[in-house]
Amino acid sequence: MTADTALVRIDKDRLWDSLTELGEVGAYHDEDTDLQGVRRLALTDEDIAGRELVMGWMREAGLALRRDRIGNVYARRAGEDDSLPPVLVGSHIDSVATAGRFDGCLGVLGGLEVVRTLDDNGISTRRPVEVAIFTEEEGVRFGTDMLGSAVAAGRIQLADARSQVDRDGVSVGAELDRHGLVGDVAVPIQPPHAYLECHIEQGPILAAGGKQIGVVRGVQAITWLELTIGGRAAHAGATPQHLRKNAGLAAAMITVHLNGMVESGDYGRLLATVGRQDNYPNLINIVPGNVLITVDLRNPDGEAMQRSIDDLQAYFAEVEETTGVTITSRTTARTPPVDFPEHMQDLVEKQATELGLTCDRITSGAGHDAGEIAALSPAGMIFVPGLYDGISHNPREYSTPEACADGINVLLRAVLELANSAD
Amino acid sequence: MTADTALVRIDKDRLWDSLTELGEVGAYHDEDTDLQGVRRLALTDEDIAGRELVMGWMREAGLALRRDRIGNVYARRAGEDDSLPPVLVGSHIDSVATAGRFDGCLGVLGGLEVVRTLDDNGISTRRPVEVAIFTEEEGVRFGTDMLGSAVAAGRIQLADARSQVDRDGVSVGAELDRHGLVGDVAVPIQPPHAYLECHIEQGPILAAGGKQIGVVRGVQAITWLELTIGGRAAHAGATPQHLRKNAGLAAAMITVHLNGMVESGDYGRLLATVGRQDNYPNLINIVPGNVLITVDLRNPDGEAMQRSIDDLQAYFAEVEETTGVTITSRTTARTPPVDFPEHMQDLVEKQATELGLTCDRITSGAGHDAGEIAALSPAGMIFVPGLYDGISHNPREYSTPEACADGINVLLRAVLELANSAD
Repeated sequence: MTADTALVRIDKDRLWDSLTELGEVGAYHDEDTDLQGVRRLALTDEDIAGRELVMGWMREAGLALRRDRIGNVYARRAGEDDSLPPVLVGSHIDSVATAGRFDGCLGVLGGLEVVRTLDDNGISTRRPVEVAIFTEEEGVRFGTDMLGSAVAAGRIQLADARSQVDRDGVSVGAELDRHGLVGDVAVPIQPPHAYLECHIEQGPILAAGGKQIGVVRGVQAITWLELTIGGRAAHAGATPQHLRKNAGLAAAMITVHLNGMVESGDYGRLLATVGRQDNYPNLINIVPGNVLITVDLRNPDGEAMQRSIDDLQAYFAEVEETTGVTITSRTTARTPPVDFPEHMQDLVEKQATELGLTCDRITSGAGHDAGEIAALSPAGMIFVPGLYDGISHNPREYSTPEACADGINVLLRAVLELANSAD
Repeated sequence: MTADTALVRIDKDRLWDSLTELGEVGAYHDEDTDLQGVRRLALTDEDIAGRELVMGWMREAGLALRRDRIGNVYARRAGEDDSLPPVLVGSHIDSVATAGRFDGCLGVLGGLEVVRTLDDNGISTRRPVEVAIFTEEEGVRFGTDMLGSAVAAGRIQLADARSQVDRDGVSVGAELDRHGLVGDVAVPIQPPHAYLECHIEQGPILAAGGKQIGVVRGVQAITWLELTIGGRAAHAGATPQHLRKNAGLAAAMITVHLNGMVESGDYGRLLATVGRQDNYPNLINIVPGNVLITVDLRNPDGEAMQRSIDDLQAYFAEVEETTGVTITSRTTARTPPVDFPEHMQDLVEKQATELGLTCDRITSGAGHDAGEIAALSPAGMIFVPGLYDGISHNPREYSTPEACADGINVLLRAVLELANSAD
């Protein structure tokens, strides 16, 4: 990095204004929080309106826009040697149904802000720089998260992605066609030189440790199980304990056992959550006859993840034996762990340190587009802390203008270093 | 009992036909079971239609009908000494929203069948015999079960009962007035000589033990708690275990602990059920922020019940300490145990034995009108087994014609003995 570029900083207010303006697209009043939230489910009219706004800004910044077959957008700033693979930055702007303004948008608008800053300062780079908007990252509408980046990276076939349908039976393909989003860039895409993504942490670790930047080690493996526990509904007052098949008790035993597995330390950095529980008939004086629970397992270590699943399945048999219920387990999601290359982590940490920002190495709990593009190229991520324990997927989601600017200044410097490197 | 009356039996087919015909009033098709169910919520038009049908049969049997202030019906067969207090038999014909044909109806129509049998055989009794239909036993519409019998017995004041409202704001008093059900019998009523009620078991114990008749010891104490567990919603992948306040884990710990309390045997014949659980936001990848659970405790021993509540409350404090949640407990129902007099239990057992029926002493898990009238007079109950683990409050509720007839033959003989006894 030259002496000049080391002093360049992004425009904090411009970044903030763009986050605010994009947050008005798909805005709604959230009853639970009494706050304005964002609802831009993938490939809805609101999502398209958000894309139009951002693509307009991209064009104003002189970027050349292309789309690939799954509707991912690539906005290109030419390099001095434009034949070289670009440094790709990006994220997504589609949202969950009760979203805030930061999830994904910071990565896309931060990429745009990097380009604007380079332009403002008349800085050219050896390699091109591209800003990506990936399609359907949240998976809320069509059921598969990181859908667009997974197609770009070749993990999911285009035809399979196009055939996915929402709850009204509308397919991804039909929506791409309706909005004219099918571009001429083939998938899988040509590997970029490197990929970088800045994202809000969506958790409490950075704030709890008083850190300004998270250097992301990788993305944890994720396994989702849906358990259907079949017992027997029975009168709470007239059915002795030994004649019960209590599906609610079985669910509780599994929940407590899972917590014990985490606390045992036997499965590395396992996280386990029973988030959903639906009792039937769900009445005060009826022993639950059927219970559905979900299990969310996360682990940066794939082997330890598998071991935890095996041991949990063995425990199901114990619970069946003890309580007389039957437990049916269905795997509804499963992704392997992704480790970002050490040199990408070191690169991010160096920029943060040189900017005087405190940082911590952290494993992403959520999936991200970077985890997909990592299959094509060296990838890295920058996390910024959020208030309120990093709450996300909620209108209370909030990262300060300073935290956002810190993350994008780190991104700017990392992009410059990658885009100008010899190899 | 004379040699003549010892050979008298009720008419099994007539009893069954009356149960079947009453089951057509308020009949509906139940989606869950694909069976015909019964829906006669108290003081609805369906309930009144059911009453009219049964009261018509009562009049045909020559009974003299009166009502009390809360709409309970008393159908009287005169005694040889009509100045003596009557032997009262009865139950209710109002139902839950998804009922079968037996709950309550067996006691009322069985009482009618006893009277019809006495008439058929030209048998008179020293004391009068009365058949009662009690108002709003289920408590489903207005929120308090055994409402009519509790007013008759003086536990609940008439004005308080009349002022109870359903979810549309319609009061008991308004419905009594609309249907012209307010009678001239003052409440509390004059104590009868004794009270007997035949009812389906609504549980699996008799069938599991291969017994034909349940001699009811009494009605268990019931305590209902509603627990609101306040934790903190958090991202399942991004929130380390030690930074969680997991309301779902707390609920599971309480559920498992309660089961352990039952199994310890330290609380006598305690039954405990967590029937309802509502997680918020109830999503696979969010640590439950708030959970509502209900606790249903039953115990024939009032002291042991109190001890279990105290120990459970102490455990809540432990859970709060361990998980960081806050637990708010609200008592939504609480009734003391009722013990039926030994001589009433012996009377029932003797009739069953003389009829060659196998029987078992059993504590009622559910509340019944007999538990209220027991405050006025010696009371007793006869249980008959049901199929499918005694499932009740469900269209699958079923007791065979033979089981129903067995119970009512026991009732007939017990009524004869009580109605003819010298004291």
